[in-house]
This record gives sequence, C-alpha cells and structure tokens, in this order.
Amino acid sequence: MAETATDWVAAIAEGADLRLMAMGAGGTVLATGRAAPEALRRSVAELTGALPPVVACGLGQAGLRKVPCRPLDDTLVQRPVHGVQLAAIPGLAQESPAHVMQGPETAIAGFLALNPKFDGVLCLPGETTVWAHISAEEVVSFVSFLTVPLARTTARLLGLDGGWDAAAFSDALSDMMAKPERLAERLASLRAEAQLRGPPEGTARARLWGGFLGAELAAARPYWLGQQVAVIGTGDIAQHYAAAIAAQGLPPAEADGAAMRLHGLGQARLLLKP
Amino acid sequence: MAETATDWVAAIAEGADLRLMAMGAGGTVLATGRAAPEALRRSVAELTGALPPVVACGLGQAGLRKVPCRPLDDTLVQRPVHGVQLAAIPGLAQESPAHVMQGPETAIAGFLALNPKFDGVLCLPGETTVWAHISAEEVVSFVSFLTVPLARTTARLLGLDGGWDAAAFSDALSDMMAKPERLAERLASLRAEAQLRGPPEGTARARLWGGFLGAELAAARPYWLGQQVAVIGTGDIAQHYAAAIAAQGLPPAEADGAAMRLHGLGQARLLLKP
Repeated sequence: MAETATDWVAAIAEGADLRLMAMGAGGTVLATGRAAPEALRRSVAELTGALPPVVACGLGQAGLRKVPCRPLDDTLVQRPVHGVQLAAIPGLAQESPAHVMQGPETAIAGFLALNPKFDGVLCLPGETTVWAHISAEEVVSFVSFLTVPLARTTARLLGLDGGWDAAAFSDALSDMMAKPERLAERLASLRAEAQLRGPPEGTARARLWGGFLGAELAAARPYWLGQQVAVIGTGDIAQHYAAAIAAQGLPPAEADGAAMRLHGLGQARLLLKP
Repeated sequence: MAETATDWVAAIAEGADLRLMAMGAGGTVLATGRAAPEALRRSVAELTGALPPVVACGLGQAGLRKVPCRPLDDTLVQRPVHGVQLAAIPGLAQESPAHVMQGPETAIAGFLALNPKFDGVLCLPGETTVWAHISAEEVVSFVSFLTVPLARTTARLLGLDGGWDAAAFSDALSDMMAKPERLAERLASLRAEAQLRGPPEGTARARLWGGFLGAELAAARPYWLGQQVAVIGTGDIAQHYAAAIAAQGLPPAEADGAAMRLHGLGQARLLLKP
C-alpha cells in the first residue's frame, strides 16, 4: 500500500491478467500487484488506498491505429471501466504485409521520448518480436515474427534445457542466414547429432537459437541492412538478438524493455485530461 | 484372443508403449493390443494364448546402421527380452549431415519388397518426416525434418483448428518455396491478418501448413528435383505432402504408411531363425 503518494497506476496486460504498478508523481514505482480485469477497481484500491487513473498497454480491446503514425498520440481514450478511469494505449496495425503489435508500441514511445532524434530500426524481442522502421518520431512500417515461441517450443520438443555455447550460436546463426530455408532440416539434424555424437547440451541449445535467429535476421534483412539499430528488450533473449545483430557488423544500441515500456506508459499519463 | 493361428506378433513403438498385432501366417491381423515394454510377455500371452516371436520397429535400444545400406538385412538380432523372443529392427543413421530414422526404415523395407525396382526418392511424412534417396534397393542418403510437430504446435499457438482451403494452401506453398526464409514472419502475419480481416479459419490453417511445407520442399529440393517420388504415409498430413509434391509437376506415387510398415515387419519375420 502506498496511500498518499500514488499519482497513477501503470497496467500491463499479461495473458488474461494485468500487472499493476502504483506510480509516484516523479516516476518511481511505489508498489506492485496483479489484477483480473473484472477485479481492477478492488485491486487498484487495495494497492493504492485510492482510485487514481490507470494507464494500460497490451489490451486487445484498446483498438489499433494504422502506420505510419506516432507510437502514441493524444487520441488516447479515457473511459470508466469497472469503476476505474482507464486509458488504454491502442496497438499499431499495418495493412500489407499484415502485421499487428499490442504492447511494443508503448516501449517504442518510451524510447523515442528519451531519444527523439533516433532514425533507424528498433528491434523488440518478445513473444512476438517486432522490427520497426522509425523516422521523424513515427513508426513508418514494421514486421513481426513468431521466432521466440517457436524456438522455445522446439527446444522443449528436443529436450534441450540449460547451457550455452557462444561459438555454436554464432556458427549456426551465420549458417542459417546463408541458407534460411534449411531451418526444419537443421533442427532434425541437431537431434540426430545429439543421438550420434552426444555434444554438450548447451551446444545444441545455442545452435537451435542461432538457427532460429539466423532465419529471422535473413527475413528481416531489408529492415536492418545499413541502418542504425537499437534492441529494446530484457533478459537472455534480448542478449541473443543483440549478439546476432552485432555479428552483422552493426553493434546495436540496447535499452531495457521493461523500463522503456514504463516510460511509455508515463508519456501516456502526461496526455490524460484531468 | 487368437489362440491357434498366431504365427508372430508385430510390435510398433508408440511413445513409451508398444502397439501389438497378432499376425496369421498369411499376413492377416488376427487381434490387436498394447503393452508397456516390461509387461510384454504377459500382453503377448493374453493377446495370442501363446508366446510367438515378436518383431518390433521404432525401438531406441535397437541400435543404428549406417547408410548407404539396405533398410533391413539379416543382421537382425533376436534375443529374449522379458521372457519373449524379440527381434528389433535397427534404425538408420547418416554421419554428415547427421540424421537418424527409427521406424521409417521398416516402411521403406515394406515398400521396396513390393517395388524392388524403385529408383528415386521416398517421402515419409511423420513426427519426423524423412526424405530418402533409394537406388538398387539401398537407402543411399536421407534427410529429416521436424516440420509436422512445428506446424502442429504453431497452429495450436495461433488457435487454428478446423477447416481447409486448398487454394490458400497452394498459394502459401509457392510463396514460401520462393522465399523460405520468411517463414516466422509469414506466421506472425497470418495472425495479424486474422485480427485485421478475419478470413475463414480454414484459410489461415491451410496457409500455415502451406508455409511450413513450402519451407521443407525448398530445403529438400536437391532430393526431389527431377526424381521419381513416392509418398509413404497415412491420413491428412500425407495428403498435404502429396499435394505439395504434385504442385511441383511431380505427381507422386502414394502408398499407405501403416500397411508398408506392417509389410516391412513381415519381411523381418521371414529373416528370423526358427
């Protein structure tokens, strides 16, 4: 409970739930919690001792805006939901090729608030990885990939858990960038190699991720080639993406995904009508 | 129970269990059952009223033989296991690129017993799909793919269940064969299209399978290009593979996978010492 100081509540959709952060006026996190959407009022009241406005991202029902556009603008709709003043940041949509993002636009808004002159490509690794072309503070176009859930599921299918071999990762990465159509064959071969020669488990796991990211980088080449790239993400997966992009001779800027998203939610807070 | 007539029992590894078929001397299936490996003796006795020899395929512990070689030969090892005379057909292995098959070699043996003059490429769709180059009754080389479990898992991830649109399948197939590196991007786009335009569910599902099979056919091109191809498989998945190969101007021969495997087990039965 952070009764006196809470100015607003940041909410991030995670599966069916919302992760909540009670925010002080200065941008500090005072308390954290979770809520089912239908219990939002009670959860916010318990968390803050009051009913401050809630700013949310990643909500399906918040609608979609068409690119090219700024990642966040003052069309933000505030409305009472379950007795709470809720402002939900819309996602972004592209008609052709069809791509949708719901959540990453908020991290992009946070990053651009801190780096307004950025011109280049943002890579946002996640359950859906997004590559966005940024110019004049707008998302000009973007493309998304299911690489991370596919790689994770395949690792589980092949029984590959711990360990990491950076050399095996970068070998597999450059192999797959040269012949990306071989992905499903290389994966079957990984399993066969483990059966025939039993390499250390970390080797196979790093090769698997190198293969998946190599296929993605090959497909995203029109995005990153010759561009300034920044990776906005958190944890191991973001590190793998940064290493893969650096291996193309493009050492990327790196920004923490959770921090950028929170900063983006803070930008949306500034747009709220009192 | 098929007490008097059972000559032998065919056993097929399925996960941790064995599927059993009591076989008459003429090759007819007299009764079927299942067994955990450690309960094999009791299950065979219950199924047949006797303890006839058991011929099994797909067992990990049966070892591997290196290609090029015949899919089945008289090195078949008979030994008592849990009180049953068991002959387990070894799988096949290739050193480089590393690939392993355990199960498909038996269907290949069955097919070649019926088509001894076959010279070309066999495609065996399954949990691991195998493409094998056959010449002079030998498996010369082979390659394997994890396409089917990847496609199935992705369909689940995207919530795509029923329905099928043959035109969408063949469009996605030829798209992906031209640009196979785009697989993970096309999959993310499928989901976005469903969100933006809501096409009938069968369209998205057919596009997903077309995409995965297109990537596989692109990678397997050195195998099938200019070759006589036969598809050995069962059910919808085998039909999709056959349609994909036919779309390359190579209408394949088709043989039932379960029947070919059983015929291969029967060939192994003929090799048993009394």
